[in-house]
Amino acid sequence: MERTVKLVLAYDGAAYQGWQRQPDRPTVQGAVEAAIQAVTRVRSPVHGSGRTDAGVHAIGQVCHFRTACGLPAETLVRALNANLPDDVAVRAATDAPADFHARYSAVRKTYFYQAYVDPHRDPLRRRRALHLRRPPDLAAMRKAAAHLVGRHDFRSFATEAPPDLDTVRTMHALRVVRIPGGFRIFATSNGFLQHMVRSIAGCLLRVGTGRDDASEAARILAARDRREAPAALPAHALFLWRVDY
Amino acid sequence: MERTVKLVLAYDGAAYQGWQRQPDRPTVQGAVEAAIQAVTRVRSPVHGSGRTDAGVHAIGQVCHFRTACGLPAETLVRALNANLPDDVAVRAATDAPADFHARYSAVRKTYFYQAYVDPHRDPLRRRRALHLRRPPDLAAMRKAAAHLVGRHDFRSFATEAPPDLDTVRTMHALRVVRIPGGFRIFATSNGFLQHMVRSIAGCLLRVGTGRDDASEAARILAARDRREAPAALPAHALFLWRVDY
Repeated sequence: MERTVKLVLAYDGAAYQGWQRQPDRPTVQGAVEAAIQAVTRVRSPVHGSGRTDAGVHAIGQVCHFRTACGLPAETLVRALNANLPDDVAVRAATDAPADFHARYSAVRKTYFYQAYVDPHRDPLRRRRALHLRRPPDLAAMRKAAAHLVGRHDFRSFATEAPPDLDTVRTMHALRVVRIPGGFRIFATSNGFLQHMVRSIAGCLLRVGTGRDDASEAARILAARDRREAPAALPAHALFLWRVDY
Repeated sequence: MERTVKLVLAYDGAAYQGWQRQPDRPTVQGAVEAAIQAVTRVRSPVHGSGRTDAGVHAIGQVCHFRTACGLPAETLVRALNANLPDDVAVRAATDAPADFHARYSAVRKTYFYQAYVDPHRDPLRRRRALHLRRPPDLAAMRKAAAHLVGRHDFRSFATEAPPDLDTVRTMHALRVVRIPGGFRIFATSNGFLQHMVRSIAGCLLRVGTGRDDASEAARILAARDRREAPAALPAHALFLWRVDY
């Protein structure tokens, strides 16, 4: 009798070629599948809520797998963690309805991109946040962000989007939040295109540092052309924060 | 005409054999001296406020050096940071009186040891905090800490203290502070013996987890014998926070 197990995962993405399994390269999906096989003695494919890119971290990535293993969920967490490398961990496991699918059942996902502001670089924050020497204008960034909330074609903010790919997504919220020593950009959407959060963060930051006017976000969006958007910001400051079902 | 420059340093200690220069092994002192030589073209010995052990981090380590280099302090910060590895940085530079000495002028130093409390390990906090599955009794830890405040012989909490070493220190404050998701033990003293903070943290934690009574701290202190104290906790959760002059 098979069951469907839902896992919430956290990982430090630095050492991984992203989520998706690849031959001969370390990926988070590969690490989780290896741990499940070690615990259950059966190879079970793991389905994530979506791919995270190389170097991107997760606090609440969600995945599921089907198994005949009868271990209670809490025992499964400990057994999997004992078989995962120290930069990946299961934070929670629950039994889910048989038709639950980490990707197709997801209603919305939230990422945040974080930066610290300091005249000089800080070695203790270097792996988790972008370094800015001067504080950006958060009010201007919020004004720019407002142009991107709602249902739009986000093609300008996507890399490797073939012409026939549907690039319309609904951005439920795009918030710029001050945190001690810096800020975070929280993006909540029903789905994200490749590099979308990092491209949007790059666009907002150009506004925040005064290089672009807030209306530039609207212009880039309307262009539906990748060449109009700034380059994606570095991966090490991006976190998949949560997935809602 | 030589000047005395005081530097405030931050570092991620993971890759270093501690502060003190050693032949053929990476140390923070060695990295700072190499950067100074690269900038000033002269080899200048650097004096730290004290040694930090292998793996220990710093937010506010202080050191000084003497140089004939005429660069303004702020320019020196940028030039040194451009020549330091990414896990070490100068956070501030100031001209100090000629007789300033990072070690001998120091009045007190503050370290903190931090832990996070979570039923399951967290990959994103693994390099900076000790993992505890259950919340310890912070009130009991504070009761134990009170026994260690004041002027005492801390020999029990020191490793490698030869019999003729003066192991009397004044603990100005020993505070257990709740932080989001965990706690920190702040220790302020006029000087620290080897492994002293990590041994004290180990002692307090045994009290917090109910293995020892709070009075055990007083008993260990009075014994003046290293064999009476618990082992030092791991280095990766210890931070040299600030040095006061």
